[in-house]
Amino acid sequence: MTRDDITLTLPGWIGEFVAGCGAGFDGDEAKMGFVIGLARRNIEAGTGGPFGAGVFEIESGRLIAPGVNLVTSANCSLAHAEMVAIGIAQQRLGTYDLSSGETAYELVTSTEPCAMCLGAIPWSGVRRVVCGARGADACAIGFDEGAKPDDWVGSLRERGIEVVCDVLRDRGQAVLQQYLTSNGEIYNAQRD
Amino acid sequence: MTRDDITLTLPGWIGEFVAGCGAGFDGDEAKMGFVIGLARRNIEAGTGGPFGAGVFEIESGRLIAPGVNLVTSANCSLAHAEMVAIGIAQQRLGTYDLSSGETAYELVTSTEPCAMCLGAIPWSGVRRVVCGARGADACAIGFDEGAKPDDWVGSLRERGIEVVCDVLRDRGQAVLQQYLTSNGEIYNAQRD
Repeated sequence: MTRDDITLTLPGWIGEFVAGCGAGFDGDEAKMGFVIGLARRNIEAGTGGPFGAGVFEIESGRLIAPGVNLVTSANCSLAHAEMVAIGIAQQRLGTYDLSSGETAYELVTSTEPCAMCLGAIPWSGVRRVVCGARGADACAIGFDEGAKPDDWVGSLRERGIEVVCDVLRDRGQAVLQQYLTSNGEIYNAQRD
Repeated sequence: MTRDDITLTLPGWIGEFVAGCGAGFDGDEAKMGFVIGLARRNIEAGTGGPFGAGVFEIESGRLIAPGVNLVTSANCSLAHAEMVAIGIAQQRLGTYDLSSGETAYELVTSTEPCAMCLGAIPWSGVRRVVCGARGADACAIGFDEGAKPDDWVGSLRERGIEVVCDVLRDRGQAVLQQYLTSNGEIYNAQRD
């Protein structure tokens, strides 16, 4: 069968998960707790890697779109949690540039972006990025984050994108470790 | 309406276009001529930006998946031609890692990858990348290629991915200029 499309669909469990968390999130730690919860649930449901993300309205804290890693379940190396959250947010808001309107949006991610997701951030139009675990924490369990600029935070700030790191880093790390101990698949592992 | 999916579908014209080109391509210039043709047709059909790409079997030259830029038509900043070609190839072959089998694949792109697509290449599993116009040629008409490592070619070669640049560069440039003179939208333009 010849496929002429790429379709990435949020797992069925996500609607109930989101509904259970309420509609708004107050502060970076609340948002981070939510996306780390997505990562944990994604492991337990077997729907992908140990990564969660979300696009939120900065001012109100309203969730626009959740995202989880779907690489293994969707057979798609592009389906990192950040990419899924950005893509779903753009579909829901009907724009390829989240900076085109008056409302400002942010990306919250349970682990710092890899090289691909970092490259995707300026194109997405988010004005702020909040990170939990570090890239080094993902590498510590065998994942590869790719060739990022040495000062990747500075490369976003130069574009007027605010970056906040290490929010609930210990809880983000704990989810990565949970994935390792549950023998989760380390796709696209580091190659030496 | 709440969308729970990201769906990127190749334009309707692409089936006939591919059928008209035959099934196999002999050499880098033949493959590049094909993906530049995709870029040109994408402009003329109004289905996205002036970029085309394809995933091919390296040994046989067989086309696995074409890709065109769908950013504006799909409302998705992730939908660069390279990403579309990689994602469609992975769907067609049923794997998130094109390096997992015995057959080796390559990505041919009408313009050098931006930072996002560059980051996506190692995760895709392609073993070879062939580029037409340079990133500077895209910047010359107002596009932004993002924060790439200074030696981006070296960063791929270090991972065992062969890179060939400047194949039919003049024809790749001509398509970019065609987009400019047709008043095509410069989405995610350079911001200073």
